[in-house]
Order: sequence, then structure tokens, then C-alpha cells
Amino acid sequence: MKLDRTIVEAIVRQIVQAQGPRGAASAPAAANHAAAKPNLVVSISARHCHLTDEHVEILFGPGAKLIPEKPLYQDGFYAAEQTVMVVGPRRRMLPTVRVLGPTRSASQVELAFTDAISLGIEAPVRHSGNIQGTPGCVLVGPKGVVELSAGVIRAARHVHMNFKDAEQYGVKNGDFMKLRIESPQCSVVLEDLLVRADATSKLEVHIDTDEGNACNLDGATKVELLKQDGGCGCKH
Amino acid sequence: MKLDRTIVEAIVRQIVQAQGPRGAASAPAAANHAAAKPNLVVSISARHCHLTDEHVEILFGPGAKLIPEKPLYQDGFYAAEQTVMVVGPRRRMLPTVRVLGPTRSASQVELAFTDAISLGIEAPVRHSGNIQGTPGCVLVGPKGVVELSAGVIRAARHVHMNFKDAEQYGVKNGDFMKLRIESPQCSVVLEDLLVRADATSKLEVHIDTDEGNACNLDGATKVELLKQDGGCGCKH
Repeated sequence: MKLDRTIVEAIVRQIVQAQGPRGAASAPAAANHAAAKPNLVVSISARHCHLTDEHVEILFGPGAKLIPEKPLYQDGFYAAEQTVMVVGPRRRMLPTVRVLGPTRSASQVELAFTDAISLGIEAPVRHSGNIQGTPGCVLVGPKGVVELSAGVIRAARHVHMNFKDAEQYGVKNGDFMKLRIESPQCSVVLEDLLVRADATSKLEVHIDTDEGNACNLDGATKVELLKQDGGCGCKH
Repeated sequence: MKLDRTIVEAIVRQIVQAQGPRGAASAPAAANHAAAKPNLVVSISARHCHLTDEHVEILFGPGAKLIPEKPLYQDGFYAAEQTVMVVGPRRRMLPTVRVLGPTRSASQVELAFTDAISLGIEAPVRHSGNIQGTPGCVLVGPKGVVELSAGVIRAARHVHMNFKDAEQYGVKNGDFMKLRIESPQCSVVLEDLLVRADATSKLEVHIDTDEGNACNLDGATKVELLKQDGGCGCKH
């Protein structure tokens, strides 16, 4: 299991550089200015969890803090040194699930469907933070155990961007886009990609390991971000 | 691992009933005749292998034959009672990989990318039977061991159909189509779906577990087969 985890982590945060937005009719003229074109980074989020300060102390001992191990692409976020064991019903478990920092106001476990099947949990697709009514699980750390009554989700695919990127794509926070990934013999279009626009985020798509493996993101030759109600990936 | 396998098998051959082909301009008038509309079945192929008669005897003993356990949707094909262990480099392995029958002229192991990552093998996307230059592996059965010098692939997504279905969709054997799967918050369009048309096959799409999990096929509300160079899933 540890070996598998190594490989999965090796493809985490796989970065694909590709072209900027297409010259959609609704995009402002500035979108065609080469220097203004945002680079499109597509990252695979492997299964991970977010913890509250309180849960960090229960799992890793009084006074424990998350220890940053690897910075994520978005400034201020990181993969922590710490991992937890996630235990589902019928004693099935995932032994080493990475904790991402910084801490949050609610603990949450984000799985791909394949992970959820392994664990025997039906994880609903939810936007991060929206965990009401979702299944719970048990988290086991070296110093203690936390039972979550809710918080196990499949994170909905989304794209982070700043307001300037959003303007160039002709979209706004809360809109949906499509991501087309061109890959030899397994190109896909992922619809329902939520736009999360704010003042400071870097342009970055987050998909999970199932989505990344379905299209072999590692071998992708091109990625494009398209408006959900507009252009599509096919030629007509 | 056995528990996981049970769950994976439970979703194998998941069947989604949906509408027939769209009234594409190139389709003959007969396509609009309600009674003539083929039902679209989408099946997930979990990891499995095909064996030669010779390899069945090496793995399961002299005189051994495949024992049909469960018929597949295509007439004459079945999941056998037998399973093999597939061993990759560095002693990593998948303990119970189902054998599908009938036997073939060459043995072949079909994995999803997630399986290939677990096994530590780089499985290229190939159409079934086209295994030249692909990685090998070791198969272990209760009575013997077979070393395959080639044959580990990720099976390319495809759609079986008979010539009448092909005529209705306006495609021919060897063409590519697209499959759009509408699923709450994770709709996808799978491009590069190879058309395998012959006189007798039933209309059935084969995708693998990664593709099925990426779009939560289990929870899909609609599936559509579209021409690769024609209509697309978006509204415009």
C-alpha cells in the first residue's frame, strides 16, 4: 500500500502547460494579447484531508501543529508532513491519507470515487466546505482518534483563478466551464468545472485521480478551458 | 483486497439504459422510427485477462478448461470462475484478476490506469488484440506460472454494434464516436470511442473503471452516443 501511495503522489500536482483561453466572442479584446494569456495548470489532487486545529492536537498530540512539507501551487497552501489513517465502515481503511494545510474550521476528507469504493463509503460530489449531510468516518493518528459525523466527499472539479483571468475567459465566480484534455486515444471533456474566482488565486484546475487517470493526464498533449455554454472541443 | 474486488465487480457491467441516437443529418430516415432505436448499454470492464488454451492448462492444470460463471452482455462471452494473480515488476501484484472467456489466440491483461499504477507497469492504450511491443507480466495460477513477454494494456474505449446500428448512427466499423455521460456535477464527454461493427454484436459501450468512476456512471442520468466529427454535448 505504501508503494502505491508513492506512485500516486508522484503524479500529484502533475502540471500541464498549455494554451490560454480561446478567442471566445464574449471575451474582451485583451484576451488576445499574448502577454496577457494565463498559463493553464491542471493539477491532480490525490486523496487528502483537511483538519481543524483541535483535531490536529487530538491526532498528533497536545500542542501539535501541521508541519509544511511541500508547498502547493496556490500561495500559502501546503502538503503537511502528517498523514492520517481513514477508517470506513466494516473496518476497511486507507492507511496513509495526506493532510493539507493550513487548518480549517471543519475537518474534511476528499476522496476519488475509486478510494471511496475501497473504503466502502458512498462519497457525494460536493464543493469543498459544503459537507452537511455527507457521510462520516474515523480518523486515526499516532496519538489519538477522531470520529467525524460528516465530511467525506468527492471534491467537485473546479478551477481557481483571479478576477483578471475570469474577465479574460468571460466568466465570473460561480460559473461553470469545461476542461478538454487531449490525450492519445483517451481525450475527454470534463464538464461542470466550477469557477472559483477571487482577487489573488493563480489559474489552476483541480481534478481528482479518477479524472486524471481516465484521460491519462500524464500523457496529455493539450488542455483547454472552455465556456460551458459556449465553444466545445469538437470541430464543427 | 478481496473486499475491494467484490465492490469493483459489483459495478462491473453496470447498465445504463438511455436514449437512442440523435436524429443526425447523416442518419437514414429509419433512425427516427421509434421501434428501430437501439438501446444504449454502457458497461464498465473491470481489470481482467484473456488466456490461450495452452495458458489455461499451465495455470489451472492439464486438461483444464475455463468454466463459465456469468454470461457477458455479448452472446457467447462470459466471466469465468477462474482468476489469476498478475505480478508486475518489483514484486507488486494484483491478487485476483478475472479471466474472461472464451479463450483466444494470445493471452492479454486489460487494466485501468489506476490498476497499472498499483502494479508499477506503464500500460499503453491499445485496441484489444493489438499487443505488439506492450509490457509483459507474470501470471500465477493454482497449478502454474506463465510469463508473458507482452500483453498488458489499457483497453481503448469502444462501442460494439451491428451493421444496422452503425447505419442508424451514420458510422462504419473503425470510425470514432464520442460518448457523453450526464451525471450530477461530473458529466463527461469521452472522445475516441472506436466503433467495432459486425453482423451480430449487440449495441454496447465498453469503458474501464477509471472512466466509469470519473463520471460516476452508477449515478448517471443520461448517456448519448455522438459522432466524433458531428454533434456535441453542449448547447449551441
